[in-house]
Amino acid sequence: MPSPAVETQSPGFPTVAVVGGGQLARMLVPPAVALGVHLRVLAEDAADSAALVAAHAVGRADDEAAVRAVADGAAVVTFDHEHVPQPLLAALEADGLAVRPGAAALLHAQDKLAMRRRLAALDVPVPAWAEVGDVTALDDFVAAHEGGAVLKTPRGGYDGKGVLVVRDGDAEARATAASWFERAGGAPLLVEELVPFTRELAVLLARSPSGQAALWPVVETVQEAGVCREVLAPAPGLDDDLAGEAAHVALRVAGELGVTGVLAVEGFEVPGPHGPRFLVNELAMRPHNSGHWTIDGSTTSQFEQHLRAVLDLPLGDTRARTRWTVMANVLGGEHPDLYRAYLHVMARDPGVKVHLYGKAVRPGRKIGHVTVSGDDPDGLDALRERARHAADYITGTVTE
Amino acid sequence: MPSPAVETQSPGFPTVAVVGGGQLARMLVPPAVALGVHLRVLAEDAADSAALVAAHAVGRADDEAAVRAVADGAAVVTFDHEHVPQPLLAALEADGLAVRPGAAALLHAQDKLAMRRRLAALDVPVPAWAEVGDVTALDDFVAAHEGGAVLKTPRGGYDGKGVLVVRDGDAEARATAASWFERAGGAPLLVEELVPFTRELAVLLARSPSGQAALWPVVETVQEAGVCREVLAPAPGLDDDLAGEAAHVALRVAGELGVTGVLAVEGFEVPGPHGPRFLVNELAMRPHNSGHWTIDGSTTSQFEQHLRAVLDLPLGDTRARTRWTVMANVLGGEHPDLYRAYLHVMARDPGVKVHLYGKAVRPGRKIGHVTVSGDDPDGLDALRERARHAADYITGTVTE
Repeated sequence: MPSPAVETQSPGFPTVAVVGGGQLARMLVPPAVALGVHLRVLAEDAADSAALVAAHAVGRADDEAAVRAVADGAAVVTFDHEHVPQPLLAALEADGLAVRPGAAALLHAQDKLAMRRRLAALDVPVPAWAEVGDVTALDDFVAAHEGGAVLKTPRGGYDGKGVLVVRDGDAEARATAASWFERAGGAPLLVEELVPFTRELAVLLARSPSGQAALWPVVETVQEAGVCREVLAPAPGLDDDLAGEAAHVALRVAGELGVTGVLAVEGFEVPGPHGPRFLVNELAMRPHNSGHWTIDGSTTSQFEQHLRAVLDLPLGDTRARTRWTVMANVLGGEHPDLYRAYLHVMARDPGVKVHLYGKAVRPGRKIGHVTVSGDDPDGLDALRERARHAADYITGTVTE
Repeated sequence: MPSPAVETQSPGFPTVAVVGGGQLARMLVPPAVALGVHLRVLAEDAADSAALVAAHAVGRADDEAAVRAVADGAAVVTFDHEHVPQPLLAALEADGLAVRPGAAALLHAQDKLAMRRRLAALDVPVPAWAEVGDVTALDDFVAAHEGGAVLKTPRGGYDGKGVLVVRDGDAEARATAASWFERAGGAPLLVEELVPFTRELAVLLARSPSGQAALWPVVETVQEAGVCREVLAPAPGLDDDLAGEAAHVALRVAGELGVTGVLAVEGFEVPGPHGPRFLVNELAMRPHNSGHWTIDGSTTSQFEQHLRAVLDLPLGDTRARTRWTVMANVLGGEHPDLYRAYLHVMARDPGVKVHLYGKAVRPGRKIGHVTVSGDDPDGLDALRERARHAADYITGTVTE
């Protein structure tokens, strides 16, 4: 069948080119349909999540010709992931294309060392960190931080990949670290203290080229084995001052780095002598897993807001629609047939919202998410139970 | 660019074929993306609203080969409109295709006389009506109904088309009626009393082939010149008994007619000696304008529910997310450039949800809708003002 036709849109409506065809690009489709803006996706494979449901071209994110083809005639270029090389981004900008976020901002989501250096220069609270070039330097850092350390490759890590916990005297971790240094070929790696956090928080906002910014309520993220399993919106029992501090930090980072589009600031709540504090851990400059709850739970979803922000449209209301929304990720399990499982989930709980990404099932892979919402102030635990059960049933780790 | 690829979906996930490429088919796209089911649309034109955003073929709804091509391999066939001929529907069913709603049910949404006869047989409360074959019979009906009458062509009318108000002594209306009878070539037309209604209500529900049914709250619809301008959800101040009666009638009609998918029952609230009553006016067996508020206002939108119903998936929770949701239709105005107007609307009111259909602007044509929601029990008027202002600003009838 023929493709959706760009040329026949109402006059004046822009096209947004998205580099990368994963679930984040896929979830831009519903708000693009509502807003009447056109999406065009560059996917590595025609079976990619977004390519199944959007006009797309097939090509790599580091292939200049492929990126230029998808950007041709688009009002803006934006991203499903951080893996577009800086020289390519710079070349697009040099040609006058609106790249959002821009190369200079995106660097800080591509390179953890660049991010740490910049945040340090801004006096943003972060965990203790250092650049280390060999195992000896790593040993020194570990010896100085009793709680242990975590070694990170500056680029390419996600969902627990490219991250190595190193404790004093752990020979196996030390050997792995040595192989990472060798592979880095002299380039420094990032080492950080293992933060004794109370919990993990995320601040999500969107910022437009005009400088308008809007934040969603701060959420709590629950990770298992380095993978986000659950998001509680808003973070329950969050200290007001801490919420304010986290919002302030996120807005400052967005402004100082010149971010356009959605910015996710992931961090740690840590105890302190004068009350809890917020330490920034990671930045992502695109819609983010910690914001999937906004599709069902906020007046404006992060996907709609990302489109509005990169197009420099006025931003939407970010208020939560209900007291609580819980999001649980659906990870791939052993059985490939999701359809029967999700039929069961719908029958058991008519209030659960199921979002699947059209991805082939592989164990541990994020293949969807579910949300449940409710207004009972004391109902958070019940919502968590419902969300986790639905997610785990689709995964196949629970069967009744 | 190549089309979305059906074949690479996760195993077990069905394809829904939709005959008709208007905004109703378009608004099926977002829930299809979330559910992971695939949509395939038969549009009359590649520039049709749904064809801009979904895999599609171009062809007419009465072209058997075109309909069969789009249905090939689909789990079910469903509809954006009622204009598929009965013989074609019957042929598809004879071949074992799952046509939802089925031909026998859909007849009552295609032919107002068939609908009136069936509802009368079911003792469903309807306005006084008759089949009339000539102006003399029309005169008799008008003379017997002091409030006046409305003549309707049994097929093809919508948004005030195919509807003629006739009052005693109105020579012009009588002449128009004469031309309608001539065009009908002896086939009877429908005449009804002009109902002295308090207001117009609509009951929306979905019913699955398994017989599961779920209703949304009853809404009030506000029409101007035969076109729906505004929907208030739920209908304010609705009498509890009346709400129960309307729900009962709608469920009974859905069950007796064997409707699958969304059913909209439009009717009148009329005063009565024992309290207000509900008279059924029209039936639509597809997502309906009176249910657009559910996209933003209900846990399960009518578009998601229609997909779930026709696929015989368990139905979702139909509760309202907030106390009130107001929907206002955006009609085409004089200026073709909607983008600047909607930018202004977004800037003025971050809480308004704008939905545009990608349709070329023609005066009076439904080209989008807006919704606003709120929890203040006394806030309905303010929401109505916001929704109407946003809709009228995009239309161009207000400019500040």
